[in-house]
Amino acid sequence: MTINPVFDTVLIIGGGLIGSSLARAAQTFQACKKTIIYDADKTVRSELTQLKVGDEVPDDLSDCVSQADLIILAVPPGRMGDAAKSISSYVQPGTIVTDAGSVKESIIDAVEAALSDEVIFIGGHPIAGTEHSGPAAGFATLFKDRWCILTPTDEKSAEAKKLKQFWEALGSEVAFMDAKRHDLVLATTSHLPHLIAYALVGTATDMETVTRNEVVKYSAGGFRDFTRIAASNPEMWRDVFLGNREGVLEVLGRYIEDLTALKRAIRWSDGDSLLNEFTKTRDIRKRIIDAGQDSAEPNFGRDHLSED
Amino acid sequence: MTINPVFDTVLIIGGGLIGSSLARAAQTFQACKKTIIYDADKTVRSELTQLKVGDEVPDDLSDCVSQADLIILAVPPGRMGDAAKSISSYVQPGTIVTDAGSVKESIIDAVEAALSDEVIFIGGHPIAGTEHSGPAAGFATLFKDRWCILTPTDEKSAEAKKLKQFWEALGSEVAFMDAKRHDLVLATTSHLPHLIAYALVGTATDMETVTRNEVVKYSAGGFRDFTRIAASNPEMWRDVFLGNREGVLEVLGRYIEDLTALKRAIRWSDGDSLLNEFTKTRDIRKRIIDAGQDSAEPNFGRDHLSED
Repeated sequence: MTINPVFDTVLIIGGGLIGSSLARAAQTFQACKKTIIYDADKTVRSELTQLKVGDEVPDDLSDCVSQADLIILAVPPGRMGDAAKSISSYVQPGTIVTDAGSVKESIIDAVEAALSDEVIFIGGHPIAGTEHSGPAAGFATLFKDRWCILTPTDEKSAEAKKLKQFWEALGSEVAFMDAKRHDLVLATTSHLPHLIAYALVGTATDMETVTRNEVVKYSAGGFRDFTRIAASNPEMWRDVFLGNREGVLEVLGRYIEDLTALKRAIRWSDGDSLLNEFTKTRDIRKRIIDAGQDSAEPNFGRDHLSED
Repeated sequence: MTINPVFDTVLIIGGGLIGSSLARAAQTFQACKKTIIYDADKTVRSELTQLKVGDEVPDDLSDCVSQADLIILAVPPGRMGDAAKSISSYVQPGTIVTDAGSVKESIIDAVEAALSDEVIFIGGHPIAGTEHSGPAAGFATLFKDRWCILTPTDEKSAEAKKLKQFWEALGSEVAFMDAKRHDLVLATTSHLPHLIAYALVGTATDMETVTRNEVVKYSAGGFRDFTRIAASNPEMWRDVFLGNREGVLEVLGRYIEDLTALKRAIRWSDGDSLLNEFTKTRDIRKRIIDAGQDSAEPNFGRDHLSED
C-alpha cells in the first residue's frame, strides 16, 4: 500500500499537457505536500497561475530547486538537456530527478550529462496523453489506469521504489524497463502509429484529385480517427522521432514491408491473403479492452456522446 | 421537408451491422410503413427475430420481393451480384433497388448485370459504421448526422429524389456523386485508413522483438486507436479492396511515397521537415470537428467515460 504523501515538495518543470496534469494529479491525489510548477515561458506561467495549477508558480528556478525532493522534467524531449542544465547549479545532492518524455535513451544521455553524479536521475514515461496541448488541456486523472514506465539503473534502490509509489499515487501502474527496450516497444505502440497518422493526413490533404471539403465531409469512414492522432503536439513529436531514430526506423522498415505485401495482394486480387491478414488482427483489440486500456463501446462511444 | 413514410414497404437484404441498423432506423424514424429484413443465413434470421428487428423476417425471398417498393442490398460488396440475382425473378418493374456497399463502380456493374432494365437501381453508400459486426451490433441512430452518398445516373429523377428523402428520414445528409469519383474519394477517407490500420496491427503482432503482452499494455500511446479500425469485418474489407483496386492502389502509392519521405527525414535527422509536416495536419482536425463529423473531446472522450 502507498502511504500519501510520498514526497514533501515536488517541482515540475514544464507547464503543458503533461506537466500541468502532473501538478493537478499530485494535488488531487495528495502525492506530495507541496507542488511547485515552473515554465520557462512567461505566458504559460500566467496561465498556470490563473488556472490555479500547483501551490506555487515561481518566476525564477533558483529559489525553488533546492526545496524539492523530487524534480520532474516535463518539457519536449529535445529540451530535456537544457531543462536539466537550468536546475544543475541549484539541485541538492540526493534529490531524485525524473522526466516524462516519450523516448528514453537519448533523454537519459542528455540529462545525465548535465547533472552531477550526486543527483539520482531515473528516466520515466507515462503512457498517457491526448491530442490537446498546453496548460488548459491538463487534467488530474490523465494518468489513472495508464501505465508508467520507469528505467532505473538499479530497480531495487530506495529511490526507484519511492518514485514508483509516487506514480501509483497518481493512479498509474508502474513497470520497470531497460531504456533501450522501452524505445523499441514504444516505437511500435506509439511512435510508429503517430508517424503513420501524420503521413496519412498529409497524403489526404495534398491529393489534388480529392478536395479538402470531401475529405472533411466523408471522414467518418475511418479517416477522422487518424486526424485526432495527427493533431498532437508537433514539436514534441519531432523530438520523439529525432530522439528514437533507431527504434522508429526498425519498426517503420517492417511496416513498409507489410504494407507493400498488402499492396501486392490487392494488385493481384489475392483475396485469401487479405482475408487472412484482416482476420488475425481482431484478437489484439479484445485483449486491449480486457486489459482496461480502451473502451469497448463502438466508435469509442463518441457517436452516442453527441446524441441528444 | 420530408414527409414520412417515404416508402410503403422496404425490404432489406442482409442482417448484419448495416442491414439491421437500417431496419431499426426505418422503424424508429417511420421512414416506411413496413420493414422486411431477410438474411440468407438461418442463424442470422433467428437472431433478427429474437431482437425484434424489422416487422417481418421471412424464411424465403420469393414471398416478399414483389411487395417491396424499395429493396436495399446490405451484404458484403463481393456478394452484391448474387443478392441481386436472388431477387431478380420476383422484383416488380419500377421498383427502386439500392445498396449500402462501400465501393460503387464494381457493385453497380455486378448488380445491373443481374437485374432487368425495368428495375431502377441507384447505388448508395452510408458513411457510417462501427468496428462491431452482426445483427446485435446494429442501432437506429447509426446514420444520424452522417453522410450518405448516392450515385444515380439521373440526379433529377423522381426515384433519386425519393431515395434521398428516405435517407434524410433516417437522419443522414445526402450527396449525389459520380460512382468513379466516389471510389477515389472513399479510397482516401476510408479504404486507405483501414488498410493502414490492418497493416500496423499486423506488423505489431508479428514483431518478434516486442511481445504481444507489451503491445497490449502500452497501447494507450496511440496503437489502441488502430486496433479499433482493424477489428472491422474482414470479409467486407477484403471485398472493398478487391472492388476498388484502382482507387486504392492510386492513393496507397501516394501514401507510401509520403511515408518514405518522412522515413528519410528521420534517417537524416531533418527536424525542420518533420515539424513542417506535423504542423500542417492540425487544421483538418478542426474542420472535421466544426463539420460535426467527430467529437472535440480529448481521446474522443473515452477515457473520461471509463472514470467512476
